[in-house]
Amino acid sequence: MVEQRQQPNKSNNIRKTKAVFYHAGCPVCVAAEQNVAAALDPARFDVEHVHLGQQKQRVAEPEKAGVKSVPALVLGGTAYHINFGADLSVLI
Amino acid sequence: MVEQRQQPNKSNNIRKTKAVFYHAGCPVCVAAEQNVAAALDPARFDVEHVHLGQQKQRVAEPEKAGVKSVPALVLGGTAYHINFGADLSVLI
Repeated sequence: MVEQRQQPNKSNNIRKTKAVFYHAGCPVCVAAEQNVAAALDPARFDVEHVHLGQQKQRVAEPEKAGVKSVPALVLGGTAYHINFGADLSVLI
Repeated sequence: MVEQRQQPNKSNNIRKTKAVFYHAGCPVCVAAEQNVAAALDPARFDVEHVHLGQQKQRVAEPEKAGVKSVPALVLGGTAYHINFGADLSVLI
């Protein structure tokens, strides 16, 4: 049996969970960004903000995680839609 | 030798924002609770969890904040629906 060793508990060494906030700059998106995405615990999450209107080449990424509309937050690979701003299909 | 003084506990003086997570115990609700509601920064938010199936007398509260379905997070009085579990109307 492989022994699992606990990593040293130094804040610098804590591996944060990746969170990606996908949006399209719409008013619903901005509200969700300023209130929900900004409310995540910075000690546990690294939050990346992706404007899909400006980075259309990244649309396949949230699609793969199950995102159907923006704004959406992908937390640890799982999609959470926050209210409804725009369907992902209009951004392709 | 430098005397070590106890710092005043400033965290007690910070007024946190009230966050209320409304749910109905459904699988979509549980996922949102464990991942999104639990991800909020505890230094800035006091999160209350309300099971509307068990506390039907509180349904008017999220309705007033604009909640249409659960799971939903009301942050500083504003409603953020997280994915879709159940319509609020089935809980009345």
